[in-house]
Amino acid sequence: MDTLEVLKTRRSIRKFRPDAVDEEVLARILEAGEYAPTGMGAQSPIIIAVTNRELRDRIAAENAEICGRPGTDPFYGAPVILLVAAENRPTAVYDGSCVIANLMNAAWALGVGSCWIHRAKEELELPFGRQLLKDLGIEGDYIGVGHVALGYVDGQPPLPKPRKANWVYRVK
Amino acid sequence: MDTLEVLKTRRSIRKFRPDAVDEEVLARILEAGEYAPTGMGAQSPIIIAVTNRELRDRIAAENAEICGRPGTDPFYGAPVILLVAAENRPTAVYDGSCVIANLMNAAWALGVGSCWIHRAKEELELPFGRQLLKDLGIEGDYIGVGHVALGYVDGQPPLPKPRKANWVYRVK
Repeated sequence: MDTLEVLKTRRSIRKFRPDAVDEEVLARILEAGEYAPTGMGAQSPIIIAVTNRELRDRIAAENAEICGRPGTDPFYGAPVILLVAAENRPTAVYDGSCVIANLMNAAWALGVGSCWIHRAKEELELPFGRQLLKDLGIEGDYIGVGHVALGYVDGQPPLPKPRKANWVYRVK
Repeated sequence: MDTLEVLKTRRSIRKFRPDAVDEEVLARILEAGEYAPTGMGAQSPIIIAVTNRELRDRIAAENAEICGRPGTDPFYGAPVILLVAAENRPTAVYDGSCVIANLMNAAWALGVGSCWIHRAKEELELPFGRQLLKDLGIEGDYIGVGHVALGYVDGQPPLPKPRKANWVYRVK
């Protein structure tokens, strides 16, 4: 697939196979995230890449609590969770979002499905999230921007919904 | 270039040739923006694509005023300005940022340079911005997320700065 095809065919995946994502593939996806644009090129975001089953399940449980659906798995069974946070500066959410976009597009280019899962902000504000950063030796004021659920697609990926009218206003 | 190469080599361009971007190329870039992920697939963002010289210069002038550098061109001479806004909902900034990331990556894949220019939020809050939306028949509560300056690169594109240490925290 060429890049335009990747950008156009990537869809949010909500059904994953439990198989681990190949480590080399994961490394390439993460590297693409590092090269996303950031305000003033400050590279303020970080990516916490979790394949550890216990931590993956704990994040899922915390996330489910936050959205009021305890006991469910908001990550749709994906074996990998990428938690993107950014230094608390004015462009934090913009920067972190671009990292997530790169991660999702790189994944799709490499045959890996993904879905943006929100509530990272709330998660990192909880004692659980603060402790997680501390355990990883991450100092400073970071805010959660989003998660990427990552894994191989179970079944057929969905087709894109038709695009809305009036996406683009063209002033020539 | 394959997709991973595009994501990794795209850099912010701050020197543009004045030549118009080919209309077919511009259309493909815009289409890639339409397929960015949005919260709940709601497709809440819009893209105002400006090549009209008068409006392009007016946006540049307003933007320069906002950042306290009147008389300068914050768009580095780029012939195209893409203004991305999103419906005022909780995921507006996240969604609009993903659209911008797609626009910039698609542009790079097609040999077109880009730079994210901020202050779209302030711009659309001014009478100028409110009138612009009105003139285009855009109703509802939209917030500005960002601009993309777009054009052919003048000179050699810059090499990426080295990536910082500790971009990724890997929990296996």
